[in-house]
Order: sequence, then C-alpha cells, then structure tokens
Amino acid sequence: MALGGTTRQLLKQVSTATLTSVLFKHGFRNVFMQGPKRLNHDDAEVMVGAAYTLRYIPSREDLNGPGEFANRSHPQRRAIEECPQGAVLVVDGRGDARAGTGGDILLTRMEQRGCAGMVSDSGVRDIAGIAPLRIPVYAAAVTAPASFTHHCAVDLQVPIACGGAPVYPGDVCVGDRDGVVVIPAHIADEVAAQAVEQERYEAWVLEEVRGGKSIVGLYPPDEATLARYHGTKRD
Amino acid sequence: MALGGTTRQLLKQVSTATLTSVLFKHGFRNVFMQGPKRLNHDDAEVMVGAAYTLRYIPSREDLNGPGEFANRSHPQRRAIEECPQGAVLVVDGRGDARAGTGGDILLTRMEQRGCAGMVSDSGVRDIAGIAPLRIPVYAAAVTAPASFTHHCAVDLQVPIACGGAPVYPGDVCVGDRDGVVVIPAHIADEVAAQAVEQERYEAWVLEEVRGGKSIVGLYPPDEATLARYHGTKRD
Amino acid sequence: MALGGTTRQLLKQVSTATLTSVLFKHGFRNVFMQGPKRLNHDDAEVMVGAAYTLRYIPSREDLNGPGEFANRSHPQRRAIEECPQGAVLVVDGRGDARAGTGGDILLTRMEQRGCAGMVSDSGVRDIAGIAPLRIPVYAAAVTAPASFTHHCAVDLQVPIACGGAPVYPGDVCVGDRDGVVVIPAHIADEVAAQAVEQERYEAWVLEEVRGGKSIVGLYPPDEATLARYHGTKRD
Amino acid sequence: MALGGTTRQLLKQVSTATLTSVLFKHGFRNVFMQGPKRLNHDDAEVMVGAAYTLRYIPSREDLNGPGEFANRSHPQRRAIEECPQGAVLVVDGRGDARAGTGGDILLTRMEQRGCAGMVSDSGVRDIAGIAPLRIPVYAAAVTAPASFTHHCAVDLQVPIACGGAPVYPGDVCVGDRDGVVVIPAHIADEVAAQAVEQERYEAWVLEEVRGGKSIVGLYPPDEATLARYHGTKRD
Amino acid sequence: MALGGTTRQLLKQVSTATLTSVLFKHGFRNVFMQGPKRLNHDDAEVMVGAAYTLRYIPSREDLNGPGEFANRSHPQRRAIEECPQGAVLVVDGRGDARAGTGGDILLTRMEQRGCAGMVSDSGVRDIAGIAPLRIPVYAAAVTAPASFTHHCAVDLQVPIACGGAPVYPGDVCVGDRDGVVVIPAHIADEVAAQAVEQERYEAWVLEEVRGGKSIVGLYPPDEATLARYHGTKRD
Amino acid sequence: MALGGTTRQLLKQVSTATLTSVLFKHGFRNVFMQGPKRLNHDDAEVMVGAAYTLRYIPSREDLNGPGEFANRSHPQRRAIEECPQGAVLVVDGRGDARAGTGGDILLTRMEQRGCAGMVSDSGVRDIAGIAPLRIPVYAAAVTAPASFTHHCAVDLQVPIACGGAPVYPGDVCVGDRDGVVVIPAHIADEVAAQAVEQERYEAWVLEEVRGGKSIVGLYPPDEATLARYHGTKRD
Repeated sequence: MALGGTTRQLLKQVSTATLTSVLFKHGFRNVFMQGPKRLNHDDAEVMVGAAYTLRYIPSREDLNGPGEFANRSHPQRRAIEECPQGAVLVVDGRGDARAGTGGDILLTRMEQRGCAGMVSDSGVRDIAGIAPLRIPVYAAAVTAPASFTHHCAVDLQVPIACGGAPVYPGDVCVGDRDGVVVIPAHIADEVAAQAVEQERYEAWVLEEVRGGKSIVGLYPPDEATLARYHGTKRD
Repeated sequence: MALGGTTRQLLKQVSTATLTSVLFKHGFRNVFMQGPKRLNHDDAEVMVGAAYTLRYIPSREDLNGPGEFANRSHPQRRAIEECPQGAVLVVDGRGDARAGTGGDILLTRMEQRGCAGMVSDSGVRDIAGIAPLRIPVYAAAVTAPASFTHHCAVDLQVPIACGGAPVYPGDVCVGDRDGVVVIPAHIADEVAAQAVEQERYEAWVLEEVRGGKSIVGLYPPDEATLARYHGTKRD
Repeated sequence: MALGGTTRQLLKQVSTATLTSVLFKHGFRNVFMQGPKRLNHDDAEVMVGAAYTLRYIPSREDLNGPGEFANRSHPQRRAIEECPQGAVLVVDGRGDARAGTGGDILLTRMEQRGCAGMVSDSGVRDIAGIAPLRIPVYAAAVTAPASFTHHCAVDLQVPIACGGAPVYPGDVCVGDRDGVVVIPAHIADEVAAQAVEQERYEAWVLEEVRGGKSIVGLYPPDEATLARYHGTKRD
Repeated sequence: MALGGTTRQLLKQVSTATLTSVLFKHGFRNVFMQGPKRLNHDDAEVMVGAAYTLRYIPSREDLNGPGEFANRSHPQRRAIEECPQGAVLVVDGRGDARAGTGGDILLTRMEQRGCAGMVSDSGVRDIAGIAPLRIPVYAAAVTAPASFTHHCAVDLQVPIACGGAPVYPGDVCVGDRDGVVVIPAHIADEVAAQAVEQERYEAWVLEEVRGGKSIVGLYPPDEATLARYHGTKRD
Repeated sequence: MALGGTTRQLLKQVSTATLTSVLFKHGFRNVFMQGPKRLNHDDAEVMVGAAYTLRYIPSREDLNGPGEFANRSHPQRRAIEECPQGAVLVVDGRGDARAGTGGDILLTRMEQRGCAGMVSDSGVRDIAGIAPLRIPVYAAAVTAPASFTHHCAVDLQVPIACGGAPVYPGDVCVGDRDGVVVIPAHIADEVAAQAVEQERYEAWVLEEVRGGKSIVGLYPPDEATLARYHGTKRD
Repeated sequence: MALGGTTRQLLKQVSTATLTSVLFKHGFRNVFMQGPKRLNHDDAEVMVGAAYTLRYIPSREDLNGPGEFANRSHPQRRAIEECPQGAVLVVDGRGDARAGTGGDILLTRMEQRGCAGMVSDSGVRDIAGIAPLRIPVYAAAVTAPASFTHHCAVDLQVPIACGGAPVYPGDVCVGDRDGVVVIPAHIADEVAAQAVEQERYEAWVLEEVRGGKSIVGLYPPDEATLARYHGTKRD
C-alpha cells in the first residue's frame, strides 16, 4: 500500500486539523501524536511521507555507550541510511525526552538522502543546526544528551507508539505547524481526497467569516449555505 | 460590576507580573492561569476583558461527534456568537490539551465580532491561521484534533477553573506575554489603579538599574529612595 | 578550582550536545538540566560561568510576603548583588514553575553587574523585558506571580538540584539553545579541551555529510576516515 | 430513566471488569473512572446507584473558608443531605487530591441516610473513620486538608468529569475493588442483563481453567466450547 | 521553642484532619505533606515530634556510591544516630521516589534510639521489615534501590521542602493514617489546645450523626446546637 | 544462559533491596521497575524467573476489539499459553495503566501452567480474583477496562521497557514486596551468590542493631566489625 504521488500532493495541501476531523469520521480518535512539536523555522515545508519506524528501549550500562555506533548494523545508524527517500522516520522513544534521538549531523544526512522528515516522541539535540534545515523535524523537546544516555535502539520497521498514537510501518504521516497526524495506510487515498474537499469548504467559510458572516448555519453548513457554496464553486 | 472604560485603559498599561503582585497584597495567591501560553505573534495586543465562560466535560461516544455542531444551541457555537464585544472567552477544558477547543474559523469570527480574546486550558488548532490574528489567543498547547475528540461543551457563564485558577463570569482577565491573570470583578478598579502606580515606580527603578544603581534600598525602596522617586515625579 | 580564562574561551566555542557526550565518557550521565529553556532572543550569547547557587523552599504564609525583600540580607536580594562577575546564578526552585524567581529588574541588574547568566528550574516573569537582554536567561517557564507566592529563598552557595542535575558551587555551567550542562569543577579544563577537539571533528563531518557522504564509517569514524580527517587538518 | 430494582440487583452480581467489556461492545471506551480507589475494608458492599453530582472549582481566598459551611444552601452541605437514598454522590474535584471533599462525619451521615456510595476524583480525609463504614467510598487519595483549602463547591446535578470520565446525573455507577464504572442511564438495563450473562460464562471458564484447561478455544470460546457451555447450563 | 510534654500529649489525641483545619484558621494553607503515606501496620502509633531535617540533592557518579557511607560524617549516617529522642527525621528527597532514603536496618536503629518517626518524600526500602516496626514511617513510595542510586545527602538541620510543604527544624510533625501535618513551632502549643477542643466537638457530632441527626445546624453548629453541646459537656 | 536451579534457590532467599545494591556495584543503576506494585496477599511467594516478554502499542479502532482474541495467534493469548514453566511474563504497556493487560482467568491459567509470575507496567483487572492467587502478580494499577481499550499486543520475546527498566528475554526477574528487579542474564549466577552473602551480613547487622548497637562502624562495617562478624559465623 505505497503512498502514491497523487495522494502525496493532495496531502501537501491540507492541514492536520482537517485530517484529524476526516479520520474521526472514519472512526479514528487516536491518530494525532501528542507531544512532538515542529522545530524548524516557520518556512519549512509541510511533511508528508510513509512511516519508517525505529524503536528504543531504556539504555543499559553494559550495552549502551559512545562506542555502540561503531557497529554498522546498529539500528539507529541503519535507520538514517535506510529510511527510504520520501519516507518519514518515526521514532518511539517512550516519550522520554531526557536525551536526543537525533542531531544536526544525522538530520542533515537524512535531508541529503531525500527523506521526508523525522518525528520523535523523545528529544533532539543541536537545535541551532536543526532549525534551519529544510527537512521537517518534530520532537517532544530539545535536549543536549546523546541517545545512549537514556535510550537503546532495538528495532526497525515494527509497529510502535509515537506520542501516544499507534504507528505501523507504511502509515502516512502528515505534519504541519499543529503537529503530526498518522493516517492508516489502507485509507490514505480516501482520506486525502476527503480532506481536500473539506479544506476547500473551510477556506470558503473563512472568507465568509472575514466578510462578517455568523458561523450559525455556516460552520457547519445548513442546506442554504451548502447550496450557496456549491453555486459559488460553479462560478 | 461591569468593566469600565477607565479601568480597561489602565489595565492595558500594566503587566500581569505587576497585577499578580498587587493581588497578592489583597490576599489572592491563585489568580494566574498556569498553563495557557500566548500563541499570537509578538505584536498582538495586550488582552483585557471581562470573562465569559464555557465549560467542557469529557466527550462520550454517543453524544459527541462532528454532527453535534449542527445544533444551533450547542454551547461552543453559542459561545462564539454570544461572547460580548470586549469580553474574553475563558474555556475550562480540564487542562486536557489533547484536543483543541477552537480553531482559525472560530477565532476569526470572534475577532470580527470585537471580542477581546480567548483563553483555554485545553488546546487550539490551526496555529498557522491563529498566530497572525490581532485577537489575543492563549491555550495550553497547539493540537490538531477537534474538540469533540475529547471534549463536550456543557455550560455557559458558570464559575469554572482555567489553568488551576477560579474564574467567575465577569472577572477581569488581563493577558500579556507572561500569560493571563484573573482579577475578581469587585476589586478590578482598585487593583488597576494600584497596578498603574506600581508599574510607574518599577519603570523608574528599571531606569535607575540601567544607570548602574544597586537594587539595595531601591527595589524595594527605602525612605531615601522613595523621597528621591517622588521628587523625580514632581519634575 | 576557579574557571580560567582559557577554559572559558574554549567552552564558548562548543555545544552542550558535545559537552554531554564528553562528560558521558568521563562517566557522568546526569549533567544536563532537564526543564530550563533559553528565553532570550536567538542572538544572545552562549552562557559560560561558574555556578553561584541559590536555594528555595516552599513559601509559608507568615514568613513570605512582599515585605520580605526589604530585609537587605534576604538571600534572593543578596544573590543578585553578590553573584560574582562572570558567574552564573543557578536557582533550585524545586522544578515548581508556578511563580517566578526573577524578573526584568533583577536580571537587568545582573547584566549591569557583568554576571554570566541565570538558570532557574522554576519560572521567570516579565518576559517582554527579559527576552531582549544580552545576559543569557534560562527557566522552566514564563509565569507572572512573584517568587514569594510559592517560594522562599533560604540558602546561598550550597549544593543544589537544578533541573534534576546536581550543582555544586563553582561547577561550570554552559548554556546554548539546547539548554544548560553543568561540568564538575575539577574536570572543567580537561572537558573543555576534549570538547573543542570533538567539535572540530563534528564540524568536518557535517561538511562531509553536506557533500553527500554516508555516515557509515564517518560518524563514528573508522580508521580510513580518521586518517583522511587528520590529513585534512594538516593542510 | 430511574435505576430499577431489578437492574440494581443484577448489577450487584457483576464486576466492573465485565461491565467495561460490555460497554465497549456498545461503543463506549471512556466509562471507567481513572484515579478513584476503594477506601473501605475489603468486606464492604459492591456499590450500585444512580449518580447525584457535585462540582468544585478551585477555592478563592475571599470566598472559601471554614465559615462558608454555615450557609445552609452551600452545595456540599446540600449534597450530603439531598443525595437520594440509593444514589451515589459523584464529585468532580478536577483530579486535585491535595484536599479532601469529604470526611468521616459527612460520610457517616450519608450512610445513615441510605445513600449508596461516594466517589471523588479528589481526596477524602479521616480514613481511620471511613475505612470501617459500610457505605462504599472511593477517592483518588487520602489527605488531611479540608475541602475549602483548595476547592469551592459550585453546582449540584450538572454533567461533570470524574476520574476523566463523563458523568451525567442519573447515570448508573457501579463500584467494586477494581474501581468505578459509569453506565449511561439509557442503556443501564440492557448492559446489566448482558453483563450477568457474560459473568456467568466467565465463572464457568474460570472453573474450566482451574481444572487445567487451556484458554485456547475457551476464552474467547469457539463453537465447540459454546456448545459444551450451553449443555452444561442445561444440566 | 521545644516541643513540651503537654503539647505532645495533646497532639497524640487529635487527627491531622483537625490540625489542618485549625492551621487554616491561623492562615496556613500549605502545611500538609502531599505524597508521603504511612507504611506501618494499622496498629502503629500516632507520630508526634519536632522535625530534625535531612536534605538530599541528586547523586553524582564520582561522589555517590556504596562506599560513601564508610565516611562517619556522612549526613545520612549522622542523621540516624543524631536525630534526637522524640524527634522526627524529615527527609527532603525532592519528591523523587526512584530510590529509598532508608531501610529496615536504619529504621530499626531509629526505633531503638527512641526517635518519634521518619517522613520522606522519596522512597523507603525493605517494606517487609519496616511495616511491623512500632516507629511510624512515611514515604512517597516503597522502592528497592539504595539512596545513592539517585540521591546524595548534603545537609542536616536546614529548612527543607517535604511533600511540597515547608519544614523548618523544630517544627512539630504529627502523623496519622491520613498523612503528616507540620505545625510551625511557635504556634504548636496554641494549635494543640485548639485542636483538642475541636476534636471533642467533632466526636460529639459524630455520635449525633450516628444517632440520625442531620448535619444542618450541627456541622458547623448553629447557636442552639452549641448550647446543647455545651450543656452536654457539663453533664 | 538459562536460569539454573541453584541460582533460583539463592534468589528466593534475598531481597530486591539487596539485589539492587549488588547490581549497583556491577555498574547497573536502572534495574528496578518503577511503578509495578505487588497485588497479592502478603503471604504470596517471592517471584523468581526468567523474563518472557510481551509488547503492546496503543490500540487502533479498526484493529482492536473484543473479537481480536478469537485469533489463536494473538500475542497476548500466545503469551499466556507459551510463557514457559518457571518463567515470568513481563509486559511492556508503556506505563499506561488506564486498561488492564491481564485478569483473573488469564492469571489463573498461568498459575495452573506453573509460570513464576507476571509483571506489567500497565494495569490488571479483577483484583478480587487475583489477590488470593499464589502466582505473584505486579502491575502499576488495578483497573477494570480490558486491554484492547487502550492496548494492542504486537510482539513476543523482544527487548522491552517495563517500569522504565530495560528487559531482555531471559533476564532474571526477582520480586518481593518492594517490587521487581531485573538482573541481566549473564551475571545472574554471580549476583545471586553475592546477594546471599550480603543478605547474611545484613541479617547479622539487624540483630546487632536490635541489641542496641550503633550503625557507626557496623553498617557499613569497619575492620573490627568485620572481624567480629566473621568470628561469629565460625561459631
């Protein structure tokens, strides 16, 4: 269930607020990651990509140290080099933001490789180097300590929790300045189409409101409003 | 006990830091809303207005859904259209910021209607649309999910908690970049006058400190300092 | 074990991310203050200075009020005037950010006196006046209430906790946009030298990555990379 | 939609674990009060009764003091005397357990009056006097301070939150040693009947398991197991 | 301001619920330790004693280890041997209960020495050995790790925080099954006398309520009730 | 690296307090599960067994419901039937105790199968049925909702977090009334032997203290004490 180019383009035009509303209508209530905040400058892009997952457990003194990354099969290092172009690296750091699970070097490498973004419910470090990157980065906090201080990477591409939401590899992650929503892969196309439609309506509503209209009968619309809206669209 | 124009003007000139200090002298220790942060761009106005309150409880699956807003007597919708000009909508969201209790459309409508601001100890959504608004907006977090995901509006104009502080309808809310303080309605005029006086002294102190003076005997003042200050004012 | 000018200059060139990594190699895992965030505008300086400590306990109604600061031997007032030039005032506010432990007047005075910064795991107030200061200021939150609302200053220059880390008077505090790290005084010189070395390598790595290199064998380096790096440096 | 005697008797025979499972099948996920724990000795009764609600906001220094209870129309005092026989007093204390919302005298009075129980997501005091009572008492903590230290009673019989769950007056509360579940009033009869059925099956399953059976095909049952179970019942 | 024998005897007869109410009338709202729970079997004594304080900061790897206790001047070891007979050891563990600040050996030693109790807002270990002791023990949690895992003892007999309350050496600590209240030393005699008086009234009220009386006019009393109560006492 | 019978017997004689101290000397600081409490009656056995792990992520509406357990390969159901005799089922429930990850039927089945215990950092349900079991059960809370309300089982026998500690399949879990410690498998034999030795010394110390000895020079011991202790043992 790959993320198609059309759906990706549609999702670039909609907000996470709209997506969570559409997903609610599909019966999903727990699809927004609580905690991770956008760390880039305001002009960074909207993030859209399929989830590539990385799981951490707490570190243990005899296993986790600066030397561990010399192991080329270390999951964190593999994640940075193997997360596909156009995909989002989603990190389960158990919501423990005392240490970072990425810094400016790793995120610059991901940007170079064409990854679509990174989301961690733990921390990231080197904010001065991360904020100007074009690749969208979300984390629960900015913090200096390296990952091994509190975290140990153990798995790639397994189902995880991130910010309290379930994330399965391949789920579609969309991030804007409100945060990150995860769309179950099998409904991503349908949700994208519905969200564009809702977004179009809300843009029209916002203009109406700016023009002085009351929200009563407008948001949500009554039949007269819908007729007027659809008439407008025809013009 | 309406908020008079004179008091409103005085309160626009003072900081919440000063107001909490003045209220402490009146015996009030729990008048600052812990949690809600200002979400507007830095050039937005100081917020001053009487509280118009809205209370939420947790949502229930059979009662709360996207369709609920079609009900024109729904408390949230009524709040947006009925919060008086010059008043602040204060929202008791039980400090649960997993869902928003307002977004760009509703806040634009409030701005159009001349409301003085919105404070929620829950979340708001659509930050990209909210940050540029002139109407001051305070919330505990930015989050994408719509209110009905976790909240159900049940009451207007009852006493509430917001950010751990008690808020009675008509209490005067003042917000700057430090956050929001709530002044019991019956002492608003007196507090405003005292705060302006204290603010004036502190502005003078700050100039003294910038000129190299020690805070000893200055802040708080001893008698010599007070004499010098009052002499200065006469000039 | 004073903080020497050379070490101070070296520490101004390195990040807290690098310092926590170097300290980890020395066996220290709990040297980053969790909670305090930088509150200045982005162009403020890196903070480097020896810790001068101030300890608070919860306030008590009969002891703590606005009048308490008239006492010239009050520990908070003394801290502002006695924290040495080039030193950092580190405040143990028990992580309780409901009240501020400093505002624009006190911090302006510290800037005038040439102090190197202030770190509190409680709050600060008057952010509009603090953000533009050149003196680095870190706190767990911005909040309006004055210190005596929840805090009572009791001690100067004793070992404290700040943001969950142990801080002994004289320990070296370094703060950048990631936050604040505390270096045990007796290893500050050695850590500074090692950090500069690591920072230099990481700067080179970042250029390599920007040039398209994989992190495999580069970060951390294998022998070939190290040889290449040291060759580069000779040039 | 009164709680009928038959439904009350059925609910006395089932566990809250079973009830939450039955409610889940009806689409309800947020019906268990997170926080309140049973404080009685183990031999106290199961609690079953319709909710009579009491709402608190944070106290304010000029309104809340020991003298406030002299007012005979004070909501807390009215709650104790007006909560109907057979009903459960459910208290919204905003999850703030720093003060109690009931003590041994008030709970003894409720026991005398024939109330069915008390649940608070705040604290209760005088545990030595409460634990031996026959009336079931649930609270988030045991704590000595009186309610007015942190709470102010403002409303009776409005929809509230208790332990994160929505509670409407008349909803049916059932409490055992696991805690308290709230059943929406309009489905209480149906849920009670279904729960008794499920409980009967689970009792049979437990005997099977004690006899050495695997849970595979048993819990949940496959067709052969169901046939065997229904055969058993006929005997 | 020593704790006299008469006051000690009076305080043994009153509850912490009554004491917090009496202290509230003296203007004190923050005198109950939030967090520490009684860990003894139910038949242990009421705890009454003057506070002897011990302060911890977070441990540091180079300073805190199993060997540290070999130092005979180590503050924790000194506290166990120097806490006076009849005094309560009050421990500021910053509310961090991940490690214990006492175990069965140390508490047995304190019992042997005639200390009046121990209160910690951190943890204790060896609950199987502690629960049967006669000396009252309060802690925020039971946990196995030794103190040095997360704590470092730094001070004796300084003002501290315990469970969010301020505690000065010599303040009078009273603990029952609700928890621990701290009475400022200079009002202990007066508070004790008032509490006994209130307790006597409440015992009478409880009998009235058990006899079927309404709380209206009884608790709090109106004039007729007070007359009846005082009449009763004369008999 | 199986858990041998000798080591198992030794570990049954020692406390978790002693084990954490021994593990600290081996360099391990994060081996105690913070959160899970013992739920059995006090006479239940000490828990000793190798870890068999089960991992949960948050539930998703389209995947998790009562019907999911009909799938015989469901990880939770497999865990109950496949956790080896003598092993401890260790559950990573992300510290979210809003729902149970086991109840009386499943735990009775594990008892029947000869499992050594269950530890969850989430909740368990049916405490009335669990408390009397002989199989030791630890959880962060008692709660009624079934697992699928908030949890989705995804993995067996992978490294997990439980109560903030890292747990690898095969690690040795020991639980007493203080809680549960996890011993890395490769040092279990050595740690067991050392713990028995330390426990023996502490039992002797406790007798000394009960006899009136000071802890100075005794705990920790000086050379004279050690000589006396070793002499005693020879007798």
